[in-house]
Amino acid sequence: MQDINIAMIGGGFMGKAHSLAYAAMPMFFWPSPARPVKKIVVDVTDELARTAADRYAWEGFSSSWRDVVNDPSIDVIDIATPNNLHAEIAIAAAEAGKHIICEKPLAPTAEEAGRMYEAAKRAGVVTAVAFNYRRTPAVALAKKYIDEGAIGEILNFRGTYLQDWSADANSPLSWRFQKNIAGSGAVGDIGSHVVDLARYLVGEISAVTSLVSTFIHDRPIQSGGLDALGGAAKSDGPRGAVDVDDESMSLVRFHNGAVGSIEATRNAWGRNNFITFEIHGTEGSIFFNYENRDELQVAFKNDPSDRRGFRTIYTGPNTPYGQSLWPIPALGIGYGETKIIEAHDFLKAVVEGTTVEPNFADGYQAALVDDAILESGRTGQWVDVPNATGSGAAHG
Amino acid sequence: MQDINIAMIGGGFMGKAHSLAYAAMPMFFWPSPARPVKKIVVDVTDELARTAADRYAWEGFSSSWRDVVNDPSIDVIDIATPNNLHAEIAIAAAEAGKHIICEKPLAPTAEEAGRMYEAAKRAGVVTAVAFNYRRTPAVALAKKYIDEGAIGEILNFRGTYLQDWSADANSPLSWRFQKNIAGSGAVGDIGSHVVDLARYLVGEISAVTSLVSTFIHDRPIQSGGLDALGGAAKSDGPRGAVDVDDESMSLVRFHNGAVGSIEATRNAWGRNNFITFEIHGTEGSIFFNYENRDELQVAFKNDPSDRRGFRTIYTGPNTPYGQSLWPIPALGIGYGETKIIEAHDFLKAVVEGTTVEPNFADGYQAALVDDAILESGRTGQWVDVPNATGSGAAHG
Amino acid sequence: MQDINIAMIGGGFMGKAHSLAYAAMPMFFWPSPARPVKKIVVDVTDELARTAADRYAWEGFSSSWRDVVNDPSIDVIDIATPNNLHAEIAIAAAEAGKHIICEKPLAPTAEEAGRMYEAAKRAGVVTAVAFNYRRTPAVALAKKYIDEGAIGEILNFRGTYLQDWSADANSPLSWRFQKNIAGSGAVGDIGSHVVDLARYLVGEISAVTSLVSTFIHDRPIQSGGLDALGGAAKSDGPRGAVDVDDESMSLVRFHNGAVGSIEATRNAWGRNNFITFEIHGTEGSIFFNYENRDELQVAFKNDPSDRRGFRTIYTGPNTPYGQSLWPIPALGIGYGETKIIEAHDFLKAVVEGTTVEPNFADGYQAALVDDAILESGRTGQWVDVPNATGSGAAHG
Amino acid sequence: MQDINIAMIGGGFMGKAHSLAYAAMPMFFWPSPARPVKKIVVDVTDELARTAADRYAWEGFSSSWRDVVNDPSIDVIDIATPNNLHAEIAIAAAEAGKHIICEKPLAPTAEEAGRMYEAAKRAGVVTAVAFNYRRTPAVALAKKYIDEGAIGEILNFRGTYLQDWSADANSPLSWRFQKNIAGSGAVGDIGSHVVDLARYLVGEISAVTSLVSTFIHDRPIQSGGLDALGGAAKSDGPRGAVDVDDESMSLVRFHNGAVGSIEATRNAWGRNNFITFEIHGTEGSIFFNYENRDELQVAFKNDPSDRRGFRTIYTGPNTPYGQSLWPIPALGIGYGETKIIEAHDFLKAVVEGTTVEPNFADGYQAALVDDAILESGRTGQWVDVPNATGSGAAHG
Repeated sequence: MQDINIAMIGGGFMGKAHSLAYAAMPMFFWPSPARPVKKIVVDVTDELARTAADRYAWEGFSSSWRDVVNDPSIDVIDIATPNNLHAEIAIAAAEAGKHIICEKPLAPTAEEAGRMYEAAKRAGVVTAVAFNYRRTPAVALAKKYIDEGAIGEILNFRGTYLQDWSADANSPLSWRFQKNIAGSGAVGDIGSHVVDLARYLVGEISAVTSLVSTFIHDRPIQSGGLDALGGAAKSDGPRGAVDVDDESMSLVRFHNGAVGSIEATRNAWGRNNFITFEIHGTEGSIFFNYENRDELQVAFKNDPSDRRGFRTIYTGPNTPYGQSLWPIPALGIGYGETKIIEAHDFLKAVVEGTTVEPNFADGYQAALVDDAILESGRTGQWVDVPNATGSGAAHG
Repeated sequence: MQDINIAMIGGGFMGKAHSLAYAAMPMFFWPSPARPVKKIVVDVTDELARTAADRYAWEGFSSSWRDVVNDPSIDVIDIATPNNLHAEIAIAAAEAGKHIICEKPLAPTAEEAGRMYEAAKRAGVVTAVAFNYRRTPAVALAKKYIDEGAIGEILNFRGTYLQDWSADANSPLSWRFQKNIAGSGAVGDIGSHVVDLARYLVGEISAVTSLVSTFIHDRPIQSGGLDALGGAAKSDGPRGAVDVDDESMSLVRFHNGAVGSIEATRNAWGRNNFITFEIHGTEGSIFFNYENRDELQVAFKNDPSDRRGFRTIYTGPNTPYGQSLWPIPALGIGYGETKIIEAHDFLKAVVEGTTVEPNFADGYQAALVDDAILESGRTGQWVDVPNATGSGAAHG
Repeated sequence: MQDINIAMIGGGFMGKAHSLAYAAMPMFFWPSPARPVKKIVVDVTDELARTAADRYAWEGFSSSWRDVVNDPSIDVIDIATPNNLHAEIAIAAAEAGKHIICEKPLAPTAEEAGRMYEAAKRAGVVTAVAFNYRRTPAVALAKKYIDEGAIGEILNFRGTYLQDWSADANSPLSWRFQKNIAGSGAVGDIGSHVVDLARYLVGEISAVTSLVSTFIHDRPIQSGGLDALGGAAKSDGPRGAVDVDDESMSLVRFHNGAVGSIEATRNAWGRNNFITFEIHGTEGSIFFNYENRDELQVAFKNDPSDRRGFRTIYTGPNTPYGQSLWPIPALGIGYGETKIIEAHDFLKAVVEGTTVEPNFADGYQAALVDDAILESGRTGQWVDVPNATGSGAAHG
Repeated sequence: MQDINIAMIGGGFMGKAHSLAYAAMPMFFWPSPARPVKKIVVDVTDELARTAADRYAWEGFSSSWRDVVNDPSIDVIDIATPNNLHAEIAIAAAEAGKHIICEKPLAPTAEEAGRMYEAAKRAGVVTAVAFNYRRTPAVALAKKYIDEGAIGEILNFRGTYLQDWSADANSPLSWRFQKNIAGSGAVGDIGSHVVDLARYLVGEISAVTSLVSTFIHDRPIQSGGLDALGGAAKSDGPRGAVDVDDESMSLVRFHNGAVGSIEATRNAWGRNNFITFEIHGTEGSIFFNYENRDELQVAFKNDPSDRRGFRTIYTGPNTPYGQSLWPIPALGIGYGETKIIEAHDFLKAVVEGTTVEPNFADGYQAALVDDAILESGRTGQWVDVPNATGSGAAHG
């Protein structure tokens, strides 16, 4: 089993998830394509980086991502920073010949995402973008049904990502509400996951028309942390402006003739990580809700009329990835498992010199959709999505 | 208790529902504002009308709606015909001074609906349009929460009406698929209910942008019945063209600043009468699914953080209409109950000389929204919805 | 269509439900086996009876059930009184040659139920006991699956009936909490429904062991009504003793080798009319929850391993009784529909001179199970249930 | 941060889960009470042990648990073997002064469990038994509600553990179906988890009456693995006898006056890891279903009558363990997280020299309940459960 030396840039919540994934990957996938070696973790100060190394069991630490990117002992750069740093790091990493896995969205703008895509393509490195929800076994099962033709030709896709961790106007001003760091708000942070699921399950999006809103215009300036999320204490201190959206709704057209809607909001009291999709095909329907992620619901037209209805399938040993996870359905898939599978699929491609999806082409294409959503939100017009990477042919 | 003499035009499925409502109304609402007297039922032939009278317990029958509309003994005309007859009957009834309850959509086009509205207004008669889902106790409870401010300012509305009784391309060509009778397809038949719920709960819709699709372009010509629905046998006989939509998705703007989406489809395998709405407000959220219509789900921002989440409220004696229904929650609200309440609210207004909602103004306004959806489906542009009846002020 | 003249004894909540059923029966079932004629309603005073006649549209009224039972114009006696009057009325009715439908439980004790059963048998009249939940279309569908062998040999039954309308110790002392009227508490009032479902779906119960509890020992004496249920105002007035159970749990053995558990409680905050059963067979499983009564859930062993799981079937035109109800699944089955079907099935048997289930034999057998539960609750021992009516052979 | 040196006996499914827990523990709990060092893994052959060490990242391996138990460098013995080896290993480990965490059930019989308990008590070592479902955050939240008095005095507990991975009579004869290894079937393997939850949430069980069944009497002899579970291929080869139960149902009494029922079955088609409990108290109710383990449902009596119903609470940063898990509710708790928390709580007690629950006293007490269930299954009588460890006082 080959060692793959990894350097991870960013030691926050995502750093935790990625560290878990590397530690657990061979435990789940065995024989494993590689042993991920957690070589170096980078954070903004040596102190933060040292703590991250200690906590997440990395061999070394650094506060200079540039040094690390150019370290010849490193095979893989894992980018888990705020969005605005993705492009600079990724392009440097590509130029240094490193394989790259980057958190989503790939970049604050499609322009930056496009430069990342081009740099990686030039360098010929393996890339991945961490749209991890594709890796939920129930989502992979939906893909399998679709690929088998079990729901026929797809007519309609409806996807949502609803949250409430920042629905309170007094929750802190994370970088996720600042355009210069995040690029956009709900569109890029959560809506991009739904765009990725739509592209994965249905095919390439050709055009969008959108409503993009900001309902909460300022929030308390955050102290003591750049990205406190749901558990953060409320504050009545000085407030700073929110200059990104917190909600978007789109109608979409796919190249293959299907239609759809995509909604992302941060203002949905009672919804936590409510990533759902419903797909209607000529032969059946699929429904998924990540809040109950062990389940996939599927209805088949051809069932006898007194036995037709949504079936609730629990993923397990007989469904995708199941032989590598837990031996009984509903023992329970958590967030960690989605990241373990993601790490596996990426590192397998690195070892085998193949590609994995979603990669930088997918990340770029998703960013083009995001940009189109934002533009449509400004203009009120349908906006065509350029097919910059040729991915439509593969999906359509 | 005053007698109200009713004549009903149309003895099909809706005739059954309305007959049940009149028979049951005083049983549920007691003391009752009136005793509905089922005087005359009208169908297209004497034979059909006689059977309807026998089956639904009407005192007399007729095959001439014109005679009946002009019968001085009749107080109320109940229109339960296919859509294309609504206007002619309703206008004649209004001119004869009859109070009118009309099935939905009010008419195939907004133009016709507008003429109905004007005629009734001129005549000063009490009108109602049978958007019965407003009468679901859980929907009335949602309205109560909103009116009490319990969910704050409304930011977002998402409504759906998904069905599958005609998702099979071999299900028969009911009049519901013919433009000259129905006016439109999913838009008017089912989408209009969601439009009504949106107007009822959120306020007046000011503009829409829509995708309107027809996925099934022809169906077997129906024999032996004008409106066989879900239970109809499949056929491989001669086929006729479907010239209406079977699916529409819209983004909507409300006058009060809220945004929303509305989806109606007949192609959703596994969905039966899937009328849902989710409303996000600054103080909470509401979710409703008619398929589990005894329940309303509501989440309140101000609940303690370890006790916050959607509450599943079962309607019963302590919620709207509850004192008139069944003594224990979840004994069960069915379709019949929604029509019993509808009949009560309408006849109460007739007796008291007041108005009831939804009335012809609401039906007209909903038809204007439907027309805007259809136009946007053709043009791809946002279409403003004229506020023809001043209802925006009331709801706004 | 033959007229059937009915006299109903009791004008409370059940009187309302039965009156609705008679009015609606031919509307739903057409051609109808008979036209139910609501001749006479009886209540404890002329005043109450007159109001009931007016409200529920009965031709006449009386305060003397004895006169009515002996009225030669009457074909059917419908008993909707408190439990302690069932036997006397039913036996007199049987002796007068009347067909009888009686509310459940058949009587406060098995001894009385047995006398009713014997009297009706001697008289050769058609009987029914109003365990209406059998008439829920989804329950009838469960029965159909079982009869078709779709879930194989039944191994296990688990049934519950949980409520909270009297979970508050300050809710009023209805007759349902008084042994001399009701016979028992949760056991007879709600548990008997589960016993009936168990017998219907699985077969005859041969023995039980039970825990029977009374957690609320006194309640405010009720003024202004004998049977105020869920909506009743709380009171801090004088209290009276509760001398019946409010909760029971049993393990049961069936003659055919299956095992099961039955739970009934009035103390389940948040449960309203939570009648559920889960049945495990060698070929599949069934789950039902009356609170979502349009649905039946069924899982089949023989589904492919990546498509196996509970299917949620909505009852409608393609499931039992569906052709007589509403044309689209999930338009909605309410409490009323269960009683309409019940009235139909009973009156059809009256007209055709056949029998219907559940009848007095079933009511008697259920009462024997109830008595065994109460006895086991006292002794802590398994108690055999005598098979007094030979029904085991039919079901086993 | 102190190192704790661990040796784990058993490299199967549970070995995987425990290895993940040790690797992840400081990532989640930070600052961490200790750094678990995965020193030695033991399996039945050197080859299996070497593979386990490689896969699960243990420093060394061995095929002699006796050597390892006596290795002075080891602080903690983790027992993840089949049940019949627990006692011998645990007693040796205790005598060697090792702290011990042991998989459940603690032993095949209460007698063995008692010896383990006594040995550990004599040795003064810290013990834990791996009833990990207590560690589900939603279960811990239920405990918090109960401890805060939010649901009042507990009246009723109903718990289930339903599975189907062995519902097919052709699924292989794992050691879990052999009495000499497992001790019992569904009772010990899964029912014991429900017993543990009942004791945790309600208090000590004083007596039981039970139905214990074996519906599948023989299964194909398993080749190539001692414990293939749900994913195992079906076989038509030679069959061996099942000499344990596959299903049990019990009524239980608690010392504090509450009553309850406990059901465990391996024959529930469509149920996967269906661990549920419903608790009714004087002030509210709680419902939990592990298949949707991110959620807890709770109903409060004191909510206003038009806002009362089950609330669906998603665990997250504001609920127990939440600060150490994921930053947003419904990112997702999986099986892994329950074991990570379990490892943390145990190792924290080891470092601090305190105790943790559930420990060997709890494991022993649960085994006494299991034995009582089996005895009652044989005798049909209520069986008292001895309170061997004094735990009733703590819980009651």
